[in-house]
Amino acid sequence: MNELLISLDLHTGTSLYEQIYTYIRKDITSGRLSCGERLPSARLLASQLQVSRSTVDAAYAQLVSEGYLQAKRGSGYYVCEIGSLYDLTQPGAEQQPGSMQKICRPQPKYNFLPGQVDDQGFAYNAWRKCAKEALLDLETSRQLLQAGHPQGEYELREAVAAYLYQARGVRCQPRQLVIGAGNEYLLQMLGQMFERTGKVAMESPTYLQAYHTFQNIGYEVVAVPMDADGMVAAKIPDTDLTFAYVMPSHQFPIGTVMPLKRRLELLSWAKEGEQRYIIEDDHDSEFRYKGRPIPSLQGISQLDRVIYLGTFSNSIMPSIRISYLVLPPQLVEVYKRKCGFYASTVSRIQQMTVCRFIKQGYFERHLNKMRGVYKGKHDLLLQLLKEKKWVYRIYGGHAGLHMAVELDCGLTEEEVSKRAQKYGMCVQGLAECYPAGRRERGGRPVMLLGFGRLSEGEIREGVEVLGKCLQGG
Amino acid sequence: MNELLISLDLHTGTSLYEQIYTYIRKDITSGRLSCGERLPSARLLASQLQVSRSTVDAAYAQLVSEGYLQAKRGSGYYVCEIGSLYDLTQPGAEQQPGSMQKICRPQPKYNFLPGQVDDQGFAYNAWRKCAKEALLDLETSRQLLQAGHPQGEYELREAVAAYLYQARGVRCQPRQLVIGAGNEYLLQMLGQMFERTGKVAMESPTYLQAYHTFQNIGYEVVAVPMDADGMVAAKIPDTDLTFAYVMPSHQFPIGTVMPLKRRLELLSWAKEGEQRYIIEDDHDSEFRYKGRPIPSLQGISQLDRVIYLGTFSNSIMPSIRISYLVLPPQLVEVYKRKCGFYASTVSRIQQMTVCRFIKQGYFERHLNKMRGVYKGKHDLLLQLLKEKKWVYRIYGGHAGLHMAVELDCGLTEEEVSKRAQKYGMCVQGLAECYPAGRRERGGRPVMLLGFGRLSEGEIREGVEVLGKCLQGG
Repeated sequence: MNELLISLDLHTGTSLYEQIYTYIRKDITSGRLSCGERLPSARLLASQLQVSRSTVDAAYAQLVSEGYLQAKRGSGYYVCEIGSLYDLTQPGAEQQPGSMQKICRPQPKYNFLPGQVDDQGFAYNAWRKCAKEALLDLETSRQLLQAGHPQGEYELREAVAAYLYQARGVRCQPRQLVIGAGNEYLLQMLGQMFERTGKVAMESPTYLQAYHTFQNIGYEVVAVPMDADGMVAAKIPDTDLTFAYVMPSHQFPIGTVMPLKRRLELLSWAKEGEQRYIIEDDHDSEFRYKGRPIPSLQGISQLDRVIYLGTFSNSIMPSIRISYLVLPPQLVEVYKRKCGFYASTVSRIQQMTVCRFIKQGYFERHLNKMRGVYKGKHDLLLQLLKEKKWVYRIYGGHAGLHMAVELDCGLTEEEVSKRAQKYGMCVQGLAECYPAGRRERGGRPVMLLGFGRLSEGEIREGVEVLGKCLQGG
Repeated sequence: MNELLISLDLHTGTSLYEQIYTYIRKDITSGRLSCGERLPSARLLASQLQVSRSTVDAAYAQLVSEGYLQAKRGSGYYVCEIGSLYDLTQPGAEQQPGSMQKICRPQPKYNFLPGQVDDQGFAYNAWRKCAKEALLDLETSRQLLQAGHPQGEYELREAVAAYLYQARGVRCQPRQLVIGAGNEYLLQMLGQMFERTGKVAMESPTYLQAYHTFQNIGYEVVAVPMDADGMVAAKIPDTDLTFAYVMPSHQFPIGTVMPLKRRLELLSWAKEGEQRYIIEDDHDSEFRYKGRPIPSLQGISQLDRVIYLGTFSNSIMPSIRISYLVLPPQLVEVYKRKCGFYASTVSRIQQMTVCRFIKQGYFERHLNKMRGVYKGKHDLLLQLLKEKKWVYRIYGGHAGLHMAVELDCGLTEEEVSKRAQKYGMCVQGLAECYPAGRRERGGRPVMLLGFGRLSEGEIREGVEVLGKCLQGG
């Protein structure tokens, strides 16, 4: 047994226990004390160092619990074999967090990217009021700290079910609803509900996030041709365990509003197989600028083969990350068996905030107001584009927060995007909505113009600048 | 062309446009108007009904957009073929949401289930302050409405990295961190990062939520024997693309604290293959009641083969649903390529709230306070149990929010659970932590006693009641 070389410093801030611990640990990791070696008894060391016995006991106990020492009953403390593979030194200062730079990207002046909302018209006051009330809920009803229902708060599901029935004709009970952290999460969960993975029929171009999600979870994605009415039902594979993923209210990115006949054809397709489901992503359904919103596919189906997916991203804010899945009744049991163990992915306080926002009528008022705001922007952009010689065709469907514009300018989409960037503008080409290597159409560039976030002034200027950049270089 | 049987009611709240729309729609769905039939011109119908031409135009336009009518240029409106498959009637009142009853379960008087936190000691005031400030942020910095960084807010990742370095010895940059909605979500995402699915070595018993997650995403779960030090590294399969999922700080449910030697053996195992990773679920690491916390596996590894997983469920509240994954540097690019398209699953306002809670020092103060609170409960429960004749052995590791207690009472775990229920008590048996059919050990029942949520009084009473129920019937 080596004598331990410990010299204690009584004037430092470090406790004696910790100093002893550190010395011994260092001796072990440096190899000065080697495997199997016996340490002085706690009593002996305490008297050598002139500290209390309990101080040494604490240091030894810590070293035992970390695996540096082993206590043998009635025999003392021995150095454990820790191997010599690892250097246990702490990282240098250069590796410490806090010293790295943030990556800042300049905000584009005209941000035409889709998926962004108006942030001037948001109901800040009402939202803050509901959030504050939810915070008080937390304090008066303290069980809200604990994990909530896996499908989401019952009260919120009730409010969402009532909203979906009234606004979208969706027929469901709260027990069919699963609240989750975004569409992609809910699609991943859905994929896990089936014993084997199957096929997903998707339009091309489509919402690439959904496409990549299905790919990531091992589903075979089948591109089904679309015509002016949307996905061609007759071209969906005639197999079982197949999903048809559609956005009938406002197809992303083309903007097609699927007419009733095509909806019924889709439902027919689903009826003809054992395990065929339509995933209705009711994207942008809140914002329709001509006529009344078309009821959901889920609402007109008698078949229980429609899985309805909606989100608060556009109707409240993208950063809230709350979506909802309406399962057909026969899939609720499957969900419970396969995915019922997952805790909810949405904070209860956030759920209670949204619940209050809906129940107190703010949500409806906000939607009505924003429908007016977005209609103004939509109509303005449409009118401005119609006047331009460089616009060949506009796809929009009078709904949603973006339109697709086919340009007649002799440039490729990449060239348009690059030039636009020079002019402080952000626009996305349609090609980016095709799975890699899938794009078949050549010819004119089609650019997606999201108008949700821009003010009317920015839209006016943006269209002018876009025109200039197409002519300029 | 049939004459349309429309009788308008001027005194109802329904607009004329909507009445016309509803009449025609009903005529089409009931079959009174059949496919291909031509409707009266808008001008003619307007004069018949004595309404303005624009009212009829609006109704027709809506029917066109929903696919009931088709407009042929210069010829008029025709009924579309909608098929006769579907009855489009609305559901009866009994199916409307809002009328169903909530399912209420009585709260147990002594809730010994693990995974619950103390809700008396929570820093309600500090939390509310941070949440209010985050709400003001939202209003002053309106881009917070839009989607944030897929990995989570940079500022929060910076704060988490600093905390992990200081408290757990974890060495990472914010760019290695992914903030996500719960451990299970982050594990699902992790599984998607690899081109093919592999094996996961897990202890048995283990944290079943993680087990089921791996099963759901198609990983083969291999049960690896554990001894008093945790997972036996020598028994982990010698294959590539294999994960070893461990909870070294406080194994769930047994409570083992993995000593250093075993940690190093695990790291050795990982080093010997091309694609072997240790998933360190740093469960319960915040609460250790004897000695100092043991540094994380991630911190002592020089190998970049440790994926670190932590959560705010125990350290803040289970209902907040925020976890964090620290990827080794070489996996950050893989993450970006395969999962970088997923939007963050945590609300930005919640992220900013937690960020303020940490940066303003509340988090550390809260942890220090709760460590004292939980230590009090832990020590009390331990002391009470030690006095009982019906307690055979206690597994706890002096950490976390639960202990596992082996009983000497001649009952099975199911019998104990059932009896306890009658006495208003909720306890979980160890058998529930084994994958189905995997439990090998017979013999005495082992019950998990979570003490996080209970007051000291409830713990005292609970232990007495548990004793009574073991003797009683």
